Amino acid sequence: MNNLKQAKSALISVFSKDGLEPIVKKLDELGVTIYSTGGTEKFIKDLGIEVVPVEDVTSYPSILGGRVKTLHPKVFGGILNRQDHEGDAAELEKYEIPQLDIVIVDLYPFEKTVASRASEQDIIEKIDIGGISLIRAAAKNYKDVLCVSSMEDYDETLSILVNQNGQTSLEDRRRFAAKAFNISSHYDSAIFNYFNQTEKLEAFKVSEHKGQTLRYGENPHQKGYFYGNLDQMFDKLHGKELSYNNLLDVDAAVNLIGEFKNDDPTFAILKHNNACGVATRKTIHQAYVDALAGDPVSAFGGILIANTEIDKATAAEIHNLFCEVVIASSYTNEALEVLKGKKNRIILVQKDINLPNSSVRSCLNGVLVQEKDLKTDTKEDLSYETNNKPSEKELDDLLFASKICKHTKSNTIVLAKNQQLCASGTGQTSRVDALRQAIEKAASFKFDLHGAAMASDAFFPFPDCVEIAHKAGISTVIQPGGSIKDQLSIDYCNENNVAMVFTGTRHFKH
Amino acid sequence: MNNLKQAKSALISVFSKDGLEPIVKKLDELGVTIYSTGGTEKFIKDLGIEVVPVEDVTSYPSILGGRVKTLHPKVFGGILNRQDHEGDAAELEKYEIPQLDIVIVDLYPFEKTVASRASEQDIIEKIDIGGISLIRAAAKNYKDVLCVSSMEDYDETLSILVNQNGQTSLEDRRRFAAKAFNISSHYDSAIFNYFNQTEKLEAFKVSEHKGQTLRYGENPHQKGYFYGNLDQMFDKLHGKELSYNNLLDVDAAVNLIGEFKNDDPTFAILKHNNACGVATRKTIHQAYVDALAGDPVSAFGGILIANTEIDKATAAEIHNLFCEVVIASSYTNEALEVLKGKKNRIILVQKDINLPNSSVRSCLNGVLVQEKDLKTDTKEDLSYETNNKPSEKELDDLLFASKICKHTKSNTIVLAKNQQLCASGTGQTSRVDALRQAIEKAASFKFDLHGAAMASDAFFPFPDCVEIAHKAGISTVIQPGGSIKDQLSIDYCNENNVAMVFTGTRHFKH
Repeated sequence: MNNLKQAKSALISVFSKDGLEPIVKKLDELGVTIYSTGGTEKFIKDLGIEVVPVEDVTSYPSILGGRVKTLHPKVFGGILNRQDHEGDAAELEKYEIPQLDIVIVDLYPFEKTVASRASEQDIIEKIDIGGISLIRAAAKNYKDVLCVSSMEDYDETLSILVNQNGQTSLEDRRRFAAKAFNISSHYDSAIFNYFNQTEKLEAFKVSEHKGQTLRYGENPHQKGYFYGNLDQMFDKLHGKELSYNNLLDVDAAVNLIGEFKNDDPTFAILKHNNACGVATRKTIHQAYVDALAGDPVSAFGGILIANTEIDKATAAEIHNLFCEVVIASSYTNEALEVLKGKKNRIILVQKDINLPNSSVRSCLNGVLVQEKDLKTDTKEDLSYETNNKPSEKELDDLLFASKICKHTKSNTIVLAKNQQLCASGTGQTSRVDALRQAIEKAASFKFDLHGAAMASDAFFPFPDCVEIAHKAGISTVIQPGGSIKDQLSIDYCNENNVAMVFTGTRHFKH
Repeated sequence: MNNLKQAKSALISVFSKDGLEPIVKKLDELGVTIYSTGGTEKFIKDLGIEVVPVEDVTSYPSILGGRVKTLHPKVFGGILNRQDHEGDAAELEKYEIPQLDIVIVDLYPFEKTVASRASEQDIIEKIDIGGISLIRAAAKNYKDVLCVSSMEDYDETLSILVNQNGQTSLEDRRRFAAKAFNISSHYDSAIFNYFNQTEKLEAFKVSEHKGQTLRYGENPHQKGYFYGNLDQMFDKLHGKELSYNNLLDVDAAVNLIGEFKNDDPTFAILKHNNACGVATRKTIHQAYVDALAGDPVSAFGGILIANTEIDKATAAEIHNLFCEVVIASSYTNEALEVLKGKKNRIILVQKDINLPNSSVRSCLNGVLVQEKDLKTDTKEDLSYETNNKPSEKELDDLLFASKICKHTKSNTIVLAKNQQLCASGTGQTSRVDALRQAIEKAASFKFDLHGAAMASDAFFPFPDCVEIAHKAGISTVIQPGGSIKDQLSIDYCNENNVAMVFTGTRHFKH
């Protein structure tokens, strides 16, 4: 540690007094002069500790209902002076400015006030001006000042004071300065995002100030981090830490199962962000068995998700499979006992939480931001393009296939029958390849595609897809429509008794 | 417009005086009292316009080498007072505080100073304290104050002053407040990111304050935006606006071609973020022809990228294809003339710019951040696992395949021969499926796989992949290795004269 400095004075002005007492007592014990204002001043006095009101320094009262308290050159001079600068020292003396070594300030709770759906006036009143100015000034002058900008840093502050006997190192002060700008930028991002809900300026802010370091990123040679609140979304009942790739898969799984929220028991199995098995059945047990039948090879090491409680019978089946993560809305006690039988298996209870409705991803030297694809195709959206119309049962399979298609990487073709995923072609550069791949895969797992439904994430530029599908036995098709050559596909379907419907909505996903 | 207010006073304190003159003149013409400091005060005086020094208001000098100038209760009281509040009005009178209606302040150029590789001391000196406090105070009190926080808003400010004869509406003031918090949050995010280069706190900030609205997102029913600086990366010579999906593809293309920066002329064709054709040849013309041969079906509507200049012969070939975007380091004049022959075709010149080395993407209720996969497998990384060793030519094909593999969506298997992509299996839930798909695709485009190289983005859990590959004629394999069953694959290769090398590096990409 270098540039150790003995703290002789501190300015304390905080909104919340939680956790402050031991620090104040330690400062007092170390003989540090404490300056303070308003409620904090009273709090310290009530502890029986001597405190100098800032107003005594500034000879200026708190004005405008407290809007202006600390914004005074004597306070900012005390913080911003350069202690190794002779001219500064002379000015401090000339203007009777006390040097400040520690600044402990927190901010008005802006985000909490917004979250409480307060009125605009109450929200605006919670935009902190003086506090953030003090924090920023102290952080700027970290060469001389320790800036404590959050009660989350009180423990660390106290241990510095105790272990270093009131001395702070340059490393301490610079680290706390970084924390301070973390706080200030987060605070102003929140204010901007509040204003921009209605102003709609073209600007984009992400400020995540609590994160977790993952074991690694997509691959072991890449560092990886998650910034978000997993506890808000899941109760984790068992297993190791979620990895970067687990999180991507869990995200895909949660979005997919969201399509089946109000349906009969549905089970989905995912690998590399794509579904390799999905089924809707009368029981979750049967749904699992039939989801697994979709591709028992890919299911190895997969992510499993159910839209209902998982019972013992289902758990017993799952236990036969090596899988990374199991997600459900709940588990019976017996099911949990079975699933906990493997040490590393991650077991999550999904809470009923809305996800953000926009997404961001890096692209070139910036980021792409978009509204999420929140459109689920329903019967009301369909236009019936062929002479042959799908039956009610066929319609159910078409919409089932369409839901999976929306959550599968483009280009994709999804084949389904009797509310079960038969196979999909995923992430293809050509749509015909996606279809061929799906047909071949379905055959390899012994699916009979006669009477099956086909969903495509985008339109068919040529009639080749419906032709190949028909020859494989597929009898119904759902797709957005919109190609200038739609009529060729429609004609082929009419000539071959295939029923095709258009949704009007493309579902590319990359 | 409601709550129109006549501006009677303005505080102006700016770092850069560019563009300020017409505003100052208009304010003077409107009879607005102008308060100012230091260089700005001199600038206004030099225009022959009357200006009140802030020091006359505060009766306090600028101290500490200018670190403390405007941080005074009379200034902040003038900004923060609520004009509809009787108590505030009384206090203004009592303490002789002038009411301020307009605040024009810009910030020390922090980011520019960092970019200029200045010393830490110079950088820290450019952390603005007073200016940002004024901006935030004025923005908070937008009910009464117009806060102009950037020279980019001078035009709009001037037109408000001119068109509304010195009156500002509540809508104006709230919009400018949003802009102000856009600036302040961006500023502090930049400061945080500067500190955090070395402090490595677990926090993540994106603050993009210049963006463009795209036609739509991944699909027409989703809004989409790009925040970044495309002009920094490309000169756009021709064609329509890049779409959301174009940008994703261009990002994939630029990252892929980056692997071939120092190689012979190389051409790549991409669709849905995956390569469907790549070839390295003696001429870029031949490279294009052989890249296209990889999958002329998928190439339709694709993204084309070259690692060299594109000449007329190549352009003439490209002109036969419907493609969305062409990217190259340069074009001959004749080539450009040919390529411009289609109105919508986007033609980009790629500049030699480094991309960010970390990436972000939304996941659940937060974001995943990771270092990019910057590891390119080289001969030095390889361990030779089989009795049969690849020849130099085979090694070149293995590394060629490995480069493509790294930029293809997982699970993937890439097949290449003679520095040409034969086929890949992309985005598969099972590795065996990826291989089968690649073999079938190669056959459909008449590739002879005898002597071809196979690259896998991750290890083989079973020996099935090398077995299927060998039966298709593939004679060399590159893969990370690391499966507990590696020996089974090695044994199979040894029994069948396949040469296999391990890289030690997995390249998952999702």
